[in-house]
Amino acid sequence: MTRVTAAERRSALAQQFRVDSVRMSAAAKSGHPTSAMSAADLLAVLVDGYLRFDFDAPKNPANDRLVFSKGHASTLLYAIYRAAGVVSDDEILDYRKHTSMLEGHPTPRIPWVDVATGSLGQGLPIGVGMAIAGKHLDRVPNRVWVLCGDSELAEGSMWEAFEHAAHLGLDNLTAIIDVNRLGQRGETMVGWDLGTYTARARAFGWAAIEVDGHDVDAIDAAFADAIATTGKPTVLVARTLKGKGVAAVANENGFHGKPLDDPDAAIAELGGLSDVRVEVAKPTVSARTHKAASTLELPRYEIGAEVATRKAYGDALAALGAARPDVVVVDGEVSNSTFAETFAKEHHERFFEMYIAEQQLVAAAVGLQAVGWTPFASTFAAFLARAYDFVRMAAISRANIALCGSHAGVSIGEDGPSQMALEDIASLRAVHGSTVLHPCDANQTAKLVAAMADTEGISYLRTLRPATPVLYGPDEEFPIGGSRVLRSSEDDEVALVGAGITVHEALAAADELAAAGIAARVIDLYSIKPLDVDTLRIAAEATGKLVTVEDHWPEGGLGDAVIAALADIDEPPRVVKLAVSGMPRSGTPAELLAAAGIDAEHIAAAARVLVADPVRAT
Amino acid sequence: MTRVTAAERRSALAQQFRVDSVRMSAAAKSGHPTSAMSAADLLAVLVDGYLRFDFDAPKNPANDRLVFSKGHASTLLYAIYRAAGVVSDDEILDYRKHTSMLEGHPTPRIPWVDVATGSLGQGLPIGVGMAIAGKHLDRVPNRVWVLCGDSELAEGSMWEAFEHAAHLGLDNLTAIIDVNRLGQRGETMVGWDLGTYTARARAFGWAAIEVDGHDVDAIDAAFADAIATTGKPTVLVARTLKGKGVAAVANENGFHGKPLDDPDAAIAELGGLSDVRVEVAKPTVSARTHKAASTLELPRYEIGAEVATRKAYGDALAALGAARPDVVVVDGEVSNSTFAETFAKEHHERFFEMYIAEQQLVAAAVGLQAVGWTPFASTFAAFLARAYDFVRMAAISRANIALCGSHAGVSIGEDGPSQMALEDIASLRAVHGSTVLHPCDANQTAKLVAAMADTEGISYLRTLRPATPVLYGPDEEFPIGGSRVLRSSEDDEVALVGAGITVHEALAAADELAAAGIAARVIDLYSIKPLDVDTLRIAAEATGKLVTVEDHWPEGGLGDAVIAALADIDEPPRVVKLAVSGMPRSGTPAELLAAAGIDAEHIAAAARVLVADPVRAT
Repeated sequence: MTRVTAAERRSALAQQFRVDSVRMSAAAKSGHPTSAMSAADLLAVLVDGYLRFDFDAPKNPANDRLVFSKGHASTLLYAIYRAAGVVSDDEILDYRKHTSMLEGHPTPRIPWVDVATGSLGQGLPIGVGMAIAGKHLDRVPNRVWVLCGDSELAEGSMWEAFEHAAHLGLDNLTAIIDVNRLGQRGETMVGWDLGTYTARARAFGWAAIEVDGHDVDAIDAAFADAIATTGKPTVLVARTLKGKGVAAVANENGFHGKPLDDPDAAIAELGGLSDVRVEVAKPTVSARTHKAASTLELPRYEIGAEVATRKAYGDALAALGAARPDVVVVDGEVSNSTFAETFAKEHHERFFEMYIAEQQLVAAAVGLQAVGWTPFASTFAAFLARAYDFVRMAAISRANIALCGSHAGVSIGEDGPSQMALEDIASLRAVHGSTVLHPCDANQTAKLVAAMADTEGISYLRTLRPATPVLYGPDEEFPIGGSRVLRSSEDDEVALVGAGITVHEALAAADELAAAGIAARVIDLYSIKPLDVDTLRIAAEATGKLVTVEDHWPEGGLGDAVIAALADIDEPPRVVKLAVSGMPRSGTPAELLAAAGIDAEHIAAAARVLVADPVRAT
Repeated sequence: MTRVTAAERRSALAQQFRVDSVRMSAAAKSGHPTSAMSAADLLAVLVDGYLRFDFDAPKNPANDRLVFSKGHASTLLYAIYRAAGVVSDDEILDYRKHTSMLEGHPTPRIPWVDVATGSLGQGLPIGVGMAIAGKHLDRVPNRVWVLCGDSELAEGSMWEAFEHAAHLGLDNLTAIIDVNRLGQRGETMVGWDLGTYTARARAFGWAAIEVDGHDVDAIDAAFADAIATTGKPTVLVARTLKGKGVAAVANENGFHGKPLDDPDAAIAELGGLSDVRVEVAKPTVSARTHKAASTLELPRYEIGAEVATRKAYGDALAALGAARPDVVVVDGEVSNSTFAETFAKEHHERFFEMYIAEQQLVAAAVGLQAVGWTPFASTFAAFLARAYDFVRMAAISRANIALCGSHAGVSIGEDGPSQMALEDIASLRAVHGSTVLHPCDANQTAKLVAAMADTEGISYLRTLRPATPVLYGPDEEFPIGGSRVLRSSEDDEVALVGAGITVHEALAAADELAAAGIAARVIDLYSIKPLDVDTLRIAAEATGKLVTVEDHWPEGGLGDAVIAALADIDEPPRVVKLAVSGMPRSGTPAELLAAAGIDAEHIAAAARVLVADPVRAT
């Protein structure tokens, strides 16, 4: 038997990847085979010659990471799995079936997939997070490989990643751009002008190599160059043909996201079925284990002191960092506002400045948690909206990340509406498996920050700009899913339900109502998701009348959450929902709370009307 | 009296801008004077020598547009207004007061401000939209000037704008980068390395000029160069000092977003109060008026035909384009999926491909409407999440834009969760003044598309991937804020409320229930915001029991909207809310609807339980 060369083996492997991609998408009657075929040679060389990954220990931080930023090329990834012997031929033919882990786009249902992709432009910024871990935290000699499409280079998030990767000296990161020229409906803006991509990458501080993406020797040399490059990340800009290997579709527009018309002919043209195996190398070093946590000593605030919840966030985070060696913090160039700087000052080696790039901010957190760290990411709550698609995808990635949004609501005052988060509760509640927390005082904030480090999924803490009085002692507990009843009596005629700044307004309203002879229950609903339905139900049964009040638009926030939670009880209460009405402007916090209709006066007025209502009274 | 040179006049103007910025922020006790002071010379030269703007006719499309992408430098803009004589000295000293239109960040409360800024990285992509209108639609010799901060170049959205502006040959667009080196909490990644910025800009296809941002003659020459450059946009990369002119703060870190400690001393150092006036030139051409609309002939579909609502979107949009010369369409490289291509084929001169850059997609729409066009922007509904911060800001801009998100919900099938919008109703409902529409059939879709063109604010249409049966005749009307009762009788024991795909499931469930002797009302709630509360209230009073069903996460969607709308009636109904439970995977639409618990079988089961409930029955 003639000994095959590495090039021959890799080319055969690539053809098999193509054949398997055609087969999978034919069996599924959907998929993106032509997008897999363009990148087959690149990945064949990578997995045969460079990737180090232990399929038996996928979470080993010393593994290389392989991210398909162009997640629609999933058949290529699954073809690799077959060649590596971790899935069977039968399994790949179940591609996209409801019973299969081999979904249309990769997700962590597959044990070797770290993060979900399929929303373009996310894989590379997430890879930056992984590479930060490898180079600056774990300090292991692993590499992060990210397969990117050329179309997704139109996403600004890719350039956030380019800038940060260079700024952080991530020479353990290699991006592979599959320049097949064709997007879903036609040519990209750049086409095959590889020099434009390399010029851009170099201007952003990367090493850039142009390569023929179907020449396995040239690809091999490029990967070798990438590995040898220190101090900066490297991008391979590979000229490829979409649908390479099948004349009917190769480099032709109109075949994106479709199985091939004649898969049997295509398979024959590609050389037929094969069973080439690849032995993926394993990492040579063993896993990092985080040092044991020490006792957490949270900050303590005196009742009555005036402390902003954002300040308490920073204090608690710094304390958490001292106790927990796995906690890492990223911030979007506002750490002196979010108070993430308190952590940064005490644990600078575990703080990474993400500048004004919120997509990269959240992506870094997703990448960090994928390799075993516990990230907190902070910016103004309003600007987390910039990363909403990343948060959505993080949920599909089954990511455990803690987000903190400061400066929520009209209570920020003079800076005006562009800086006020007023839709964050709604948008973050609507993320699968999320936790939404909105504390009203400093001790409560500290306890919730500690809890977030152990909360699965996306947890979100909404903090306030202004200082607010400390209501609770430092030894009180605030479990996620709980609430606190601040005022209660057997005579309560109405319950006032708020969170954050509106708790303080509700307390003032209760005083005003008491003076008028109306007993009002006051509930601090600091955990907006999950919700303390029991306490709400008891209040509903006791009073039949609720006023909810939130520094947020009326839709999808605290009020809607409360109303929905009580909708299927036997006697749903009557609820008046107070929320921000009308577009805010600049002004003092007190002026803005009043103008929005959510201050103590408006709460008391709503409660009085509800209590006096003749229909219910009869 | 000695005649002053242009340079002397401009320098004096710049000093006055600095003095006024110091005064305004001192009076307001907040603001960003140092960020205004760095850009004062740049803007003095611009308004004295280049800007053409008629303050008496701000909406004239022939005006230049001036966008403060770094909106926090608002005092500089307001100082220009004083120098131009359109606001008084008293008015600028009301800066940031609740009664003043001069907000912390500019908004269209000011008649000369087109769009709100303050979320960094948005002004330039919006400017691209304005420049598209000037160059490719209105074809007027105006220019778009965008003042950008250097910190905001870390936002990927800026690079989306750079790429698109060059791709579209927008030589009427000039970006002015105020490279003052310092962000909120420290130095940017690039600092004063101007060559890095120019290399990046050139790699993205722009002309780039390095300039001393405090040398008014050099600035003048640079603007002259920009105007003379054809075929590509130009960026001035200006080296500046943050806080220029006041030694205590100039080029010092730690003075972002704060009034100066000693404003009187600073004003004295800057040369004291002055009353330099600037005569802003007016445009020489007159306004465009859109041609009169012709009769709209919407597509007509036969009842019973199977037509995807996304297909109807494209058909209706093309018809709308024929009738309405003001309608412009942008799409995110998926026009063959959203069916925006139907419009593109018939009206290619009013279609702009925004590639895979959803932030630029929405920003272009905002820019286009700011100058009098009626834009529709489409992509997969899931990927509109990428532009959520742009939509949030568009509401603050009082923008009138129509968004269409296709491929909503699990009904898309095999592509899997990354492509399924399941949070879009919640997030778009929570946008101030928004309209959220979710049609279930083709004729309904067509009518709603037509209505969107005349809807103020952000309107959102959610369309479906699969074909669905046409339920309504082509002459039926579907007003925004309405609903349709598809099944109704005096014996109804329960009402089933859905929209989009779940209307069809609800109808099947009603059949199933009827067979079991239970009369069920079926409501098609195609207008989710605003909501047809009257119809819901009548159903609630008639049945006392509602089942809501939506292809969306449980939070903040159709169900929560219905429940909240009925929360303050005398006898709120009991409501069971069906929504997507658990993370979807790949599969057929039918499998996924069943797994999510929102198919006909689950609806019927929920209705049976609710109807049989012993508590309400007694």
